[in-house]
Amino acid sequence: MQISIPETAEFIKNSDNIYILSHQSPDGDTLGSAFALWNVLKSMGKKANIYNSDGFPKRYDFLYEGYYEQDFEPQTIISVDVADEKLLGSALEQYKGRINLCIDHHISNTDFAERTLLNSNASAACEVLFALFKFMNISLDKITAECLYVGMATDTGCFKYENTAIDTHIAAAVLMKYGIDYAGINRKMFDVKSKARIKVEQYLYSNIEYALDDKCAFVVITQDIVDKSGIESSEFEGLASMTLQAEGVEVGMTIKEKDENTYKISMRSANDIDVSALCQQFGGGGHIKAAGCSMNGTLDEVREKLIDAIQKAIEEKK
Amino acid sequence: MQISIPETAEFIKNSDNIYILSHQSPDGDTLGSAFALWNVLKSMGKKANIYNSDGFPKRYDFLYEGYYEQDFEPQTIISVDVADEKLLGSALEQYKGRINLCIDHHISNTDFAERTLLNSNASAACEVLFALFKFMNISLDKITAECLYVGMATDTGCFKYENTAIDTHIAAAVLMKYGIDYAGINRKMFDVKSKARIKVEQYLYSNIEYALDDKCAFVVITQDIVDKSGIESSEFEGLASMTLQAEGVEVGMTIKEKDENTYKISMRSANDIDVSALCQQFGGGGHIKAAGCSMNGTLDEVREKLIDAIQKAIEEKK
Repeated sequence: MQISIPETAEFIKNSDNIYILSHQSPDGDTLGSAFALWNVLKSMGKKANIYNSDGFPKRYDFLYEGYYEQDFEPQTIISVDVADEKLLGSALEQYKGRINLCIDHHISNTDFAERTLLNSNASAACEVLFALFKFMNISLDKITAECLYVGMATDTGCFKYENTAIDTHIAAAVLMKYGIDYAGINRKMFDVKSKARIKVEQYLYSNIEYALDDKCAFVVITQDIVDKSGIESSEFEGLASMTLQAEGVEVGMTIKEKDENTYKISMRSANDIDVSALCQQFGGGGHIKAAGCSMNGTLDEVREKLIDAIQKAIEEKK
Repeated sequence: MQISIPETAEFIKNSDNIYILSHQSPDGDTLGSAFALWNVLKSMGKKANIYNSDGFPKRYDFLYEGYYEQDFEPQTIISVDVADEKLLGSALEQYKGRINLCIDHHISNTDFAERTLLNSNASAACEVLFALFKFMNISLDKITAECLYVGMATDTGCFKYENTAIDTHIAAAVLMKYGIDYAGINRKMFDVKSKARIKVEQYLYSNIEYALDDKCAFVVITQDIVDKSGIESSEFEGLASMTLQAEGVEVGMTIKEKDENTYKISMRSANDIDVSALCQQFGGGGHIKAAGCSMNGTLDEVREKLIDAIQKAIEEKK
């Protein structure tokens, strides 16, 4: 059941001993939301803990400042930035059907909670919380403002993407008044790369190949290079999107060797080619602009099949 | 002589037959400012032309929509985003000492014009113009709003850097109300790269060098590589910032060969080292986090002097 901001404020006011659940493979928005809410609940004199099935990544450690876990029996369960119960990961079993309040911004939200505060026009769950805290007349502190900023900045690619709303910029302006270290945060979130990540990008730049009149760009990542480089698997995140960088590319992909004659393909679309449909041809799937599949065969066979399928998709769009 | 926004508004109201000068190696801010001002002057029924010593790069062609040159004798010369007369390039000879109004945001502005509207807290000259147009009660159109957005977005790395002000976000929110294609603009400005740009980055990744315990990163760009690559000079924009990518780097720079034994240095600071002060040691200047200078000598001499100076600056900060 969807509820309004005033109803949500009332519910929170009357709640205590709260467990805050964030989604698996946590990102800046689910963590920013969780820690912002924790700080606000604490300032209201309430007990709260945050749970994430994958733990709290080091990358966001500046958000965890001042956080500590307390020992209590949860009476209220609130999920933040969770579109579907399944995304609770290992917490699913324990909390399935027990979420009292869900605060979210995904249009695909499955309405799994008792109450849902949903604004699908908001760039981030943090933007929903910003509006809620404003209604509740909460005076934010710097760390809470930083948590909220991180969620909005990371979900919008630093105010770059379509999902950036007028209200997102207004919220950012307000949060800056709390003296947040936005430049330091953005540097950490968007600019600083580990030496390993730089190695990965170097590899991409040296090995990117073009096909179909440069409408298709791809890079092959062999097991050998992964083993030798000492690069963590997580460092390869986002590499498929990077193949879309070049002007004119419609479909980009990484072809990553898993075992001998087994390849994992991550495919991205720059415009209107449906890569989910393309990957379905090979038993995979995903979203229109981001999909994947696994394929067997020699590298040459796999590449040829993929390029043939992409060529057909491009021709159909003409 | 510095003048206020009301004085600037009055001056513009009383001017006509205007030449707008932008700085050499034009970027999004100088071009956004020039074309925004042109559109506004046109809406006021005034004649104006825009001049850039390097022409108008194709990358920003969406800003030029509706622009045309007229035949008239200039009576008023206005420069935008020009910190120093020298940056007028080949226009310097003709307009030296003749600039009637300078609209700028560089703290290093040399006060070369008869009148200067300077706000060194503004992220971009476009932000200064935004405030000016607001005072003048100009009703912006979509293209003018896009020009202003481009200047602020490009100078702040899409609201990412320290120079982003509270007013920058407020201005972005207001400009979005004009239905600007901010996501398309940002994709063009920050995500899509020409093949030439990709070549430049490839070059960066293959040639980046580290010094001072990896606290300094730099890349040398030789005349030879520029000539051979067929890369336009404008493609090198933003490369200096990219040297800051690696974790732990404090100062990054590009050392670009201009002529034999002449090098142009673009220096960037990741945290609190003042690269403007560093570049001033070599007759240059700029902002605390982004500055530049020209140096004579062999590459080895130039590099050694720079690294020595950077080392001292790092030690002083300890």
